Amino acid sequence: MSDHPPHAPESEEGASPARWRRGDPRLLARTRILDLQAVPFIHPRRGVARDFVVVAAPDWVNVLAHTVDDRLVLVNQFRFGIDGFSLEIPGGVIEPGEDPVAAGVRELAEETGFVGERARLLARVHPNPAFMANRCHLVLVENCRLTAAPEWDADEEIVVSAPPVAEVFARARAGEITHSLVLDALFFFEPIWRAGASRSAV
Amino acid sequence: MSDHPPHAPESEEGASPARWRRGDPRLLARTRILDLQAVPFIHPRRGVARDFVVVAAPDWVNVLAHTVDDRLVLVNQFRFGIDGFSLEIPGGVIEPGEDPVAAGVRELAEETGFVGERARLLARVHPNPAFMANRCHLVLVENCRLTAAPEWDADEEIVVSAPPVAEVFARARAGEITHSLVLDALFFFEPIWRAGASRSAV
Repeated sequence: MSDHPPHAPESEEGASPARWRRGDPRLLARTRILDLQAVPFIHPRRGVARDFVVVAAPDWVNVLAHTVDDRLVLVNQFRFGIDGFSLEIPGGVIEPGEDPVAAGVRELAEETGFVGERARLLARVHPNPAFMANRCHLVLVENCRLTAAPEWDADEEIVVSAPPVAEVFARARAGEITHSLVLDALFFFEPIWRAGASRSAV
Repeated sequence: MSDHPPHAPESEEGASPARWRRGDPRLLARTRILDLQAVPFIHPRRGVARDFVVVAAPDWVNVLAHTVDDRLVLVNQFRFGIDGFSLEIPGGVIEPGEDPVAAGVRELAEETGFVGERARLLARVHPNPAFMANRCHLVLVENCRLTAAPEWDADEEIVVSAPPVAEVFARARAGEITHSLVLDALFFFEPIWRAGASRSAV
């Protein structure tokens, strides 16, 4: 499950932290959205062996849909984790073998009916390196337009809106958007958007 | 577990999505860092009842330590979730009853030996509203200085560094910082820092 070669240096910075050796995960619980594992790790010098809790989930995708009239597509829906509503960008689980950018384009169309151009990867982040193994791919789609009706899953009830980009940044910083991965997408998009806005103003 | 009154409107925007009614969680697995639960929800109109997976964990804190010479304190350590190293800001679990800002100040001192002034809440985010109930509190501490040796837990081996703020933003956007909650803190700090930098330049 590591991207690193087996004989990589123990630390990226050549300093003291050691790369622990990972053993075989033991399944604690399997659910529809994630596996809970106990993973044994051994310290290469101290010899200490300990189990660490790891949540193994598929990679996720979040998609920033920038419209032809400088807006961002948002979805508001009931979220079972927080037992409340959450204002987010579209997103979901990447299917096995699915390209992350294609997954973003798919989720965008399914949840909102918006379709755009120049879909590309904005960044890849880790939801939580301490105990989650998966990544979230942040996808940017430009020149988006509403072209069709959304296709919601059985339990999806979504309010779609598309406020001006500047308003989305202001509302996010005022606390109206609280989903960490949505805020990440805004972090990566902001300099791209500001550069585009200053070009438009010339 | 909800912040909302029992008779709140079904949607923040007055539109169609319903607030599902939450039942009593059933424990699937208990670990040192989180509980895995199956939580029954009932749709108020359609009558559909379904179990949703919820990860119940304590609230977390991340702390942005801005130094007297315009740097940010970073920690690089081995992370068991991704089986690799991760460049982050200090952070950890908030103890029961502990004030989030005090927790941030504590984690900063323990992990890095830095102490500062005007510690305050920058924002509160949800790691993942879809299936996680907890929040992460993002704390800003200013005028930080290295005043003591860090006090690491048994399994903590940390490289502390403090690059210039502009370099941290550049490295984050280049993919060197991938922890979603660390990127959130940078998102909220950026306009504050740019406003301070323009004041200094006057």
